[in-house]
Amino acid sequence: MTEGFGDRLQQHLRERGPLCVGIDPSRSLIESWGRHDTVEGLEFFCLAVLEAIIDTVAVIKPQVAFFERFGSQGYRVLERVMSEARDADLLIIADAKRGDVDTTNDGYAEAWLSEGSPLRADAMTVSPYLGFESLAPILHLARATGRGVFVLAATSNVEGRVIQSARTQDGRSVESFVLEEIRRCNQPDEGLGPFGAVLGATRDRPQFALETLKGPYLVPGVGSQGGTPENVARVFERCPEGSVLASVSRAILQAGPERSSLRDAARRWRDDLAHALT
Amino acid sequence: MTEGFGDRLQQHLRERGPLCVGIDPSRSLIESWGRHDTVEGLEFFCLAVLEAIIDTVAVIKPQVAFFERFGSQGYRVLERVMSEARDADLLIIADAKRGDVDTTNDGYAEAWLSEGSPLRADAMTVSPYLGFESLAPILHLARATGRGVFVLAATSNVEGRVIQSARTQDGRSVESFVLEEIRRCNQPDEGLGPFGAVLGATRDRPQFALETLKGPYLVPGVGSQGGTPENVARVFERCPEGSVLASVSRAILQAGPERSSLRDAARRWRDDLAHALT
Repeated sequence: MTEGFGDRLQQHLRERGPLCVGIDPSRSLIESWGRHDTVEGLEFFCLAVLEAIIDTVAVIKPQVAFFERFGSQGYRVLERVMSEARDADLLIIADAKRGDVDTTNDGYAEAWLSEGSPLRADAMTVSPYLGFESLAPILHLARATGRGVFVLAATSNVEGRVIQSARTQDGRSVESFVLEEIRRCNQPDEGLGPFGAVLGATRDRPQFALETLKGPYLVPGVGSQGGTPENVARVFERCPEGSVLASVSRAILQAGPERSSLRDAARRWRDDLAHALT
Repeated sequence: MTEGFGDRLQQHLRERGPLCVGIDPSRSLIESWGRHDTVEGLEFFCLAVLEAIIDTVAVIKPQVAFFERFGSQGYRVLERVMSEARDADLLIIADAKRGDVDTTNDGYAEAWLSEGSPLRADAMTVSPYLGFESLAPILHLARATGRGVFVLAATSNVEGRVIQSARTQDGRSVESFVLEEIRRCNQPDEGLGPFGAVLGATRDRPQFALETLKGPYLVPGVGSQGGTPENVARVFERCPEGSVLASVSRAILQAGPERSSLRDAARRWRDDLAHALT
């Protein structure tokens, strides 16, 4: 991959719309499809979703937690899902929210962003609780392999406010600190940089001028969590075209197991988002 | 498991000393043992460490990142290591630092703390960036299955200070907020509760009165990161006996691959820690 992640993402969003389908094979969703919550049920669920949306969306976001609950066998399914998505030219964001001290982050970088890994994604989500600087090995490998990183800034859930709105010693909110660090890491004169932020659609606009990030936004909280395409459009109104990726999960997945219903739901969300964001 | 995690941990520490061996099979450590950094090298490394320390220590702490870099095959090795540790009555803390919104944390709880999971540990580490309350499903399953949770409060690395020392709206530091929440979740009249904190040995004493947590401390940063048994003793001086677990990794692992050298290194650290902490 010679092109950077930001540019590849932007191209995909321009061609296929600003929707990311969150693949969240939770027990309750698998059972709501009339399947048992087993490794076989997991695999059936994920491959059905993939098949239904493969020509409709630009990006998928597998939620790693729901694979991890089956241990190594769950990871085998995740590897298969990622392999099929790669073959179909879908971009993959591994929603892993990893984060540790820097020497340990080397391991997470290798898992999700290195060329030879069976779990390699186009981008991964990471958590900055152990310090933004401790993420350096992940950011470094992402840049080296043409991949991307979305750092948690302000998440879509209200419980996150206590820590994310706390004030650092120089008076900034934690979320603003994270956003400024992301901007600092994106190179100034490229198109869209490889480092993005996770910023919930259910949030007010933060103080940080969102259009200056020089990287993409991954926007959860759309659909079942209450965020609408209009919320997304309002929060990110001045951001460049193709830099805002809204993630919808349950509101689409609960339309299954019928492939046509899944596809219709994904198309509706994609079109509504595309309409609101232009 | 009818007894709670805190009480089981305390019993183990009283019998076998306050040392936790961090199993960190990084590329550099595996190669420093003269092995290739492959799944086979990973398995050899971990089983050798386990064999060497099995009668010497109370607790092991596998660092999940270093298994995850090999995808499903790495997780298969982790499952084997955990299974052998369980058979030897070692307590296992899965150092995973997971954390997401509550519905997703259900998945992580199932992975690491449910009875039927191949990855079940005695306790896991979690990150509170998405809110302490979002951890509820993890805390809940831990209590229900007699397992424990260590929440990141103040980590051993300096990069973590910006966010961990930020001030919440009511003027507390983030780390104090986390410690107070942990205390609130431990039942008032039991022995040692199941919910603990990760608190680095390289830190100054925080404002929070550490002896009031009613749960255990997992203390990284000892050994290669510069923390000494005396640091640990000073920071936690008023805490109950058997509630402080110091984690040493590289300073022991680099003594390998000779089993006897590994064992000697583990014994030395265990005895020095036991001496300092009494």
